[in-house]
Amino acid sequence: MNSNYSGPDSVPAVGMVGAGQLARMTSPAATALGIRFRVLAGSADESAAQVTADVVVGDYRSRADLMAFADGCDVVTFDHEHVPGPLVEAMESAGHTVRPGSRALRCTQDKQAMRQRLTALGYRCPRFVPVASGDDVAAFGSQAGWPLVLKAVSGGYDGRGIWICKDLSAATDVLGHALEHRLELIAEEYVRFSRELAILVARSPHGQGAAYPVVETVQQDGICREVIAPAPELPLMVANDAQRLGLEIARELGVVGLLAVELFETSDGLIVNELAMRPHNSGHWTIEGSVTSQFEQHLRAVLDLPLGSPGLASRWSVMVNILGGDDPDLRSRLVHVMAADPAVKVHLYGKPVRPGRKVGHVTALGQDLERTRNRAWRAANYLAHGTEEDA
Amino acid sequence: MNSNYSGPDSVPAVGMVGAGQLARMTSPAATALGIRFRVLAGSADESAAQVTADVVVGDYRSRADLMAFADGCDVVTFDHEHVPGPLVEAMESAGHTVRPGSRALRCTQDKQAMRQRLTALGYRCPRFVPVASGDDVAAFGSQAGWPLVLKAVSGGYDGRGIWICKDLSAATDVLGHALEHRLELIAEEYVRFSRELAILVARSPHGQGAAYPVVETVQQDGICREVIAPAPELPLMVANDAQRLGLEIARELGVVGLLAVELFETSDGLIVNELAMRPHNSGHWTIEGSVTSQFEQHLRAVLDLPLGSPGLASRWSVMVNILGGDDPDLRSRLVHVMAADPAVKVHLYGKPVRPGRKVGHVTALGQDLERTRNRAWRAANYLAHGTEEDA
Repeated sequence: MNSNYSGPDSVPAVGMVGAGQLARMTSPAATALGIRFRVLAGSADESAAQVTADVVVGDYRSRADLMAFADGCDVVTFDHEHVPGPLVEAMESAGHTVRPGSRALRCTQDKQAMRQRLTALGYRCPRFVPVASGDDVAAFGSQAGWPLVLKAVSGGYDGRGIWICKDLSAATDVLGHALEHRLELIAEEYVRFSRELAILVARSPHGQGAAYPVVETVQQDGICREVIAPAPELPLMVANDAQRLGLEIARELGVVGLLAVELFETSDGLIVNELAMRPHNSGHWTIEGSVTSQFEQHLRAVLDLPLGSPGLASRWSVMVNILGGDDPDLRSRLVHVMAADPAVKVHLYGKPVRPGRKVGHVTALGQDLERTRNRAWRAANYLAHGTEEDA
Repeated sequence: MNSNYSGPDSVPAVGMVGAGQLARMTSPAATALGIRFRVLAGSADESAAQVTADVVVGDYRSRADLMAFADGCDVVTFDHEHVPGPLVEAMESAGHTVRPGSRALRCTQDKQAMRQRLTALGYRCPRFVPVASGDDVAAFGSQAGWPLVLKAVSGGYDGRGIWICKDLSAATDVLGHALEHRLELIAEEYVRFSRELAILVARSPHGQGAAYPVVETVQQDGICREVIAPAPELPLMVANDAQRLGLEIARELGVVGLLAVELFETSDGLIVNELAMRPHNSGHWTIEGSVTSQFEQHLRAVLDLPLGSPGLASRWSVMVNILGGDDPDLRSRLVHVMAADPAVKVHLYGKPVRPGRKVGHVTALGQDLERTRNRAWRAANYLAHGTEEDA
């Protein structure tokens, strides 16, 4: 079934490789549009597998599993960027429609390639250099200053791929572990940013583009905690620049589907940090806060349907992630949160609670920013650990 | 598993008997709240069965099938009112939690009981009388006037249970068919209404109630075509009366879950037409148009979770049903509709297109009522039969 729209009654089938919370939240969007939705899950109890009618259990690192999965799909897309590039190419070579395609995806799988490509296209990125030894790092550090950032070109270890190193000794330590795990590294300057922003755009095969409003993201220990939409007090010109940048990068890289660009706002302008080509944590607020959720938008884009309006449904939308705490019984606290604020929207991912793990998120909409932020934080904190204070 | 919240990790399982579009649209609400959702479907290709992970195929008229289904559920609820009353009672007697319960449900399954109960409670209903012969109808007609309405007390034939009869000859014809199908009938006065309204409320076992804004419904040939929320130019006092009436009836009848009350607005006040105790076509607009969708609200109510805010998300919400036309290939027209209006929300039910059948709906939100209505009608008409005009 390689040709598009070939299912019974012309109902297209979209297959998403991966069954985490992004696939889980894509499933309802497919339901509304009458699109058949299938996930490739590592096991039947993964987040999206619990709630999707069509689940294939298999390994995204297995050529055979991917090929078998793609056979039932009109379009193959992704919930994460960990499918090895050669296997993405193999699906394409076999005639499957893969969106985004392997060429675009490379920039999310190889940070060095991403930096080189964006720099060549003229986008401002942190200074960077490939490093293989302590001497390489020391040389870059003497030029770019300390702290500096070490990043795995691809993958990582212990669940991490980014390390902020305060000095050469810390960097040498990371380098040692990276060599053990056969990781290639790049060193990047540590950017002094005033805040982090993200721009989420969609692009269809026809080249139609749509940009959501620029959001502010708040990270703690490398994990997204809060997203404010739209980014408060962002000068209109900067917002326009960010939207244009997102749409241009999507076009230049040939992205089909969603593209999230994480940005540093500095006194000196916007600097590109990371890219993702899938629904993104910085866009969860769109479920309630935008006319078209990012999940519906991704489906529309990969199916080459006209894109939906990315307009705001409310003055402010604030999303706060629920990070697992010490007490796994999150559900027992749901009653309190619902009673305390009948308008806050809770999304649970069906994942076992582990400390620090994203197990859900809450979104609050409102007219007053501080009140809206307070509502979202209060609900997320209470769900996470039973108090309304941040941990 | 009869005790509440007994699933793994305290995740409650809600089972919905029936797998039509109401169950289909309940499924995403369960996903967001991390609730396990199971449907009892007549076949694996029914609307909700296509998109729900946990599908039990069985017959809602079979005691054994219902009992087996209920065994896996913390709460059993319904997508329609056709489960025979004795079987609902049997589930309750076996210790299952059934919401709404058999006593409340009786008023949606037996129109004579409903009329008697509501009349006894002091609510204005059309005048009615049980009829078994042409003489009975003639006697009622000479008193209540013509046309009059014949209604099956329960069920119907040829997919209908309500007949508007212009004269005795037409009524005698219906009576003859009804006798063939062993249907009991009541005759009701034909109410001269200025328009039809509906009030949708939720009630939890604790007795918490929440009322959505009163909506105007537009019916054609006994089928709901359009819902406007809130009902335009409705005097505040009438709106308040309708909301109070909905909440009171829910309490008086012991409803748990949603209660939709269809009303006639007359120069002489509000008259109760029909009741439904489930998500209702008059509440589909709440998916985008309210802070809490009716589907989420129903789940919250039957699980005795605090109810969500029934507040408006937009000045106006207009829902128009997509009725199947002659051309079954609705999907080929989706592209046009999405391109013409990137903000209109399309919901397809995955049902084969048959003339006159509800196969989906569209909702438009906006600040200007006429423009919003035009957008919704244009999209629904185009999807149904490829022109923007009404059929």
